[in-house]
Amino acid sequence: MKWGGTALNMLDQRQLPHHEVWLELTTWEQVRDAIRDMAVRGAPAIGLAAAYGMALAAQAGADRGLARQALLESRPTAVNLAWALSRSDGHGWNLDDQLANAENLRKEDLEQNLAIGRFGADLVPSGASILTICNTGSLATAGHGTALGIIRTAFTDGKVKNVFACETRPRQQGLKLTAWELAKDGIPYQVVVEGSIATLMANHMVDFVVAGADRIAANGDTANKIGTFTLAVVAKQFGIPFVIAATSSTIDRAMANGKGIPIEERAAGEIVHPAGFEGCSVWNPAFDVTPCEFISAIVTENGVARPHYDFS
Amino acid sequence: MKWGGTALNMLDQRQLPHHEVWLELTTWEQVRDAIRDMAVRGAPAIGLAAAYGMALAAQAGADRGLARQALLESRPTAVNLAWALSRSDGHGWNLDDQLANAENLRKEDLEQNLAIGRFGADLVPSGASILTICNTGSLATAGHGTALGIIRTAFTDGKVKNVFACETRPRQQGLKLTAWELAKDGIPYQVVVEGSIATLMANHMVDFVVAGADRIAANGDTANKIGTFTLAVVAKQFGIPFVIAATSSTIDRAMANGKGIPIEERAAGEIVHPAGFEGCSVWNPAFDVTPCEFISAIVTENGVARPHYDFS
Repeated sequence: MKWGGTALNMLDQRQLPHHEVWLELTTWEQVRDAIRDMAVRGAPAIGLAAAYGMALAAQAGADRGLARQALLESRPTAVNLAWALSRSDGHGWNLDDQLANAENLRKEDLEQNLAIGRFGADLVPSGASILTICNTGSLATAGHGTALGIIRTAFTDGKVKNVFACETRPRQQGLKLTAWELAKDGIPYQVVVEGSIATLMANHMVDFVVAGADRIAANGDTANKIGTFTLAVVAKQFGIPFVIAATSSTIDRAMANGKGIPIEERAAGEIVHPAGFEGCSVWNPAFDVTPCEFISAIVTENGVARPHYDFS
Repeated sequence: MKWGGTALNMLDQRQLPHHEVWLELTTWEQVRDAIRDMAVRGAPAIGLAAAYGMALAAQAGADRGLARQALLESRPTAVNLAWALSRSDGHGWNLDDQLANAENLRKEDLEQNLAIGRFGADLVPSGASILTICNTGSLATAGHGTALGIIRTAFTDGKVKNVFACETRPRQQGLKLTAWELAKDGIPYQVVVEGSIATLMANHMVDFVVAGADRIAANGDTANKIGTFTLAVVAKQFGIPFVIAATSSTIDRAMANGKGIPIEERAAGEIVHPAGFEGCSVWNPAFDVTPCEFISAIVTENGVARPHYDFS
């Protein structure tokens, strides 16, 4: 994602890994659609995109409240959208001020990811096989990544033997995005289906599990990609550390626990097409909430929190 | 699957649910390929197919030992292949005798599935939401099914509120086959991705979990579709019964425990294509082994076994 003078240039993540296509978004409505339709995804990245969307809205002299509300509602679960928009509120309604906000957010996010990587990598044992889910790398953030940032820093430290990237059904962000990022960095990895995690963990093939977050409640309950909670349950059964990595902007201090986090339910077609049949019945929640008691540590740019969590 | 006079007619399960295409297999080599390439799958069904394959081999005057060995090696994990071929050994090397064996196996399998359905349905609570994985229905057996047979009988008993069919990556047998069978029978169901199971189970959306088996060791350790063990771990965490359903022919009494069960590793392409990139690294085991301590009950045509299992 980069500002191109008068437009937001954004890699269309739906076309990866086959095609590296850059979208040129010239209106805030196009940014809203790109978030909703998941051309950009990943909690920090959609927050950033929304901030750039506000810059485009200011440039066009759009109704500020209208643009803000529509961007806020483009996806429901990640709190970073609300946070990025609240940061926008403190800036004047013109291109320069809104662009400065977006560029500040980008710079901060990258610095914070590097800090998360440092704090988190220190938790990784030497020679570790690390399991992760979804994509939390450069594509999901301003750069480096959260959970994948920890993997990157730990790899640079010489500690990573292998990474298992969960495929992450239904949209396969692990297969399409994380594998692509790991391959680019030369980090050894294997894609696995979510069903394989008990076999991996019971057979000592995984030493450390790390995932990102879309929203963290004050008590540490964490909403993230569907499948994260399942990883946490299996990790707990086999005594493997399960760590959440996110910038502090992902913490929703006003939310006491995970019960109140809205979980986006997406279209059946994400699961059904092209393999299933017309009319096939599906339940397709995009996220789950991992209760805090299943989380060994929560790593932010401020350091490592351990249970019992209290972010209020 | 039906005998067509001089050929084995077999529904090509790879083309479901979009197309109901019947293959006409006229040689034992075609049967071997159909098993290997998964035109037919499901442990009892591949045993049956192998028995018909021996009939075709006898009809052609093929080398008996050669045909037997090739059919035995067409897939490694299910013990039903070996069992069906050992039943074939007791019959003369001519079409009539081998066909009689295959037809007997089919009749027995159906009767046994109905018995499993009866024993298993009695374990299902009233108004149950049942979760299952892969396909264990009419397509995987001579009819009715094992785990799906229990669901069918329990539904006829009026006990089933809903079925969650795990998609079952990578080949999506839950989405392609089980949903198709459930829809045909008018049983309420929803397809879910494997990642959703912790959310389902923690939120009391599942009362009963039932899965089939490809091989059961003497101590109850059970090999089944990859993902089964993960279901069992999560079910145990949330106190939900986890039941295995299989005919007694699936029990490998000579195998003391699951450590010796060979697990088929299939091609990376099953996971990668069409979403991933050329050269994407993958680990793709087709099965896992659920240790006996995670299994609440094992239902066969002979009744309900409870821990500690001893099938030796």
